[in-house]
Amino acid sequence: MSDLEALKKEAALKAVALVRSGDRVGLGTGSTAKYAIEELGRKLAAGELTGIVGVSTSEASEQLARQVGVPTEPLDPRPLDIAIDGADEIAPNLDLVKGLGGALVREKVTEVQARRLIIIADHTKLVGQLGEKAPLPIEILKFGFLSTIDRLRAFLPGGQLRQPAAQPYVTDNGNYIYDARLPETFDPAELERRIKGTLGVVDTGLFLGMAERAFVAAPDGVQELTRS
Amino acid sequence: MSDLEALKKEAALKAVALVRSGDRVGLGTGSTAKYAIEELGRKLAAGELTGIVGVSTSEASEQLARQVGVPTEPLDPRPLDIAIDGADEIAPNLDLVKGLGGALVREKVTEVQARRLIIIADHTKLVGQLGEKAPLPIEILKFGFLSTIDRLRAFLPGGQLRQPAAQPYVTDNGNYIYDARLPETFDPAELERRIKGTLGVVDTGLFLGMAERAFVAAPDGVQELTRS
Repeated sequence: MSDLEALKKEAALKAVALVRSGDRVGLGTGSTAKYAIEELGRKLAAGELTGIVGVSTSEASEQLARQVGVPTEPLDPRPLDIAIDGADEIAPNLDLVKGLGGALVREKVTEVQARRLIIIADHTKLVGQLGEKAPLPIEILKFGFLSTIDRLRAFLPGGQLRQPAAQPYVTDNGNYIYDARLPETFDPAELERRIKGTLGVVDTGLFLGMAERAFVAAPDGVQELTRS
Repeated sequence: MSDLEALKKEAALKAVALVRSGDRVGLGTGSTAKYAIEELGRKLAAGELTGIVGVSTSEASEQLARQVGVPTEPLDPRPLDIAIDGADEIAPNLDLVKGLGGALVREKVTEVQARRLIIIADHTKLVGQLGEKAPLPIEILKFGFLSTIDRLRAFLPGGQLRQPAAQPYVTDNGNYIYDARLPETFDPAELERRIKGTLGVVDTGLFLGMAERAFVAAPDGVQELTRS
């Protein structure tokens, strides 16, 4: 395991320590969240946790949960006790950019129902301001996607359709992703409203005011951040 | 042909009379729009129009266009010269409710690019205020749809998931539709922003400030309305 992977796992263990027996747990998506799902499976198998139910934010997390023995249920309107997920960027106030893994909308729809959203990451994800390092993923309808991108480029120039191979990347919802470049300065809530209000947009990877705390692993230990 | 059907066809013919040879034409969806597509096919076959290209707003319209010999292209970012479509409700200022046919989002994405959006309807679709007769269709993601409906019901109580049979209705985009009941008084633009801004919502059937004119057929003739 590389140093970075070891750090991600360390953060995941801290977050899973907050899960209590009987909790309904939102299962995040991506390379850091997978350590949390594995740890939940280990704790269930070891009898350190009982009666938890996972609610997956992607097909990939659903498969992993099954593999490691975490029982799951589909999302319904009941609140989740806790959700644990990674992030691509973490601002000082715990506003987030998520969605590099492509599950942004399912994550958002799930995690907005969580009483506690716990973010886990390595220290490279901390930024002074959102957009410093990562693009902002925006899920858009396939139908008319070129026109939707034109509408987005009018105020978010410089982004691109996510297209890792010959065909564009398709989300679990059957949509495309436009990876936007964020401007140097912006009001996150206003930008979120403007993007979400754009015809053809399903939702964005901005997670504002949602995270309660973050465990951020650095070489000298795991730092715990709470929302300012 | 029933009286109502004859009226719908009469309105459609007036709208198609505005199409010029060479136009790129948005093809609407539904029981009134189908008369426009058929008339376009007839005019092409008769040589009364040449070189037009249709851009379909649904799989159903695409099929009909092929059947009647209207060549089609997928939507791209170029403007359409004209689009012709029906509506479920027409307010005095030509704000519309659309989407009873289920194609609201594709219609909106297509018709926003039209230089001229021409609405065709029979007189039963005229209302003093939107929501008088028809529900407002709202396209929502399948994933977490019950939670999305809860979020919508918080400010739009009394609606329901569109479910004509055992399974919910699925749009061409693979989403569900929530048919909302509109309040007695509301600011259309503000309501549109609020609905579109709701997590899990793809778009709404409110078409505000988009229609240039409407041909509304009544037993005593076809009335032509322009945007106030």
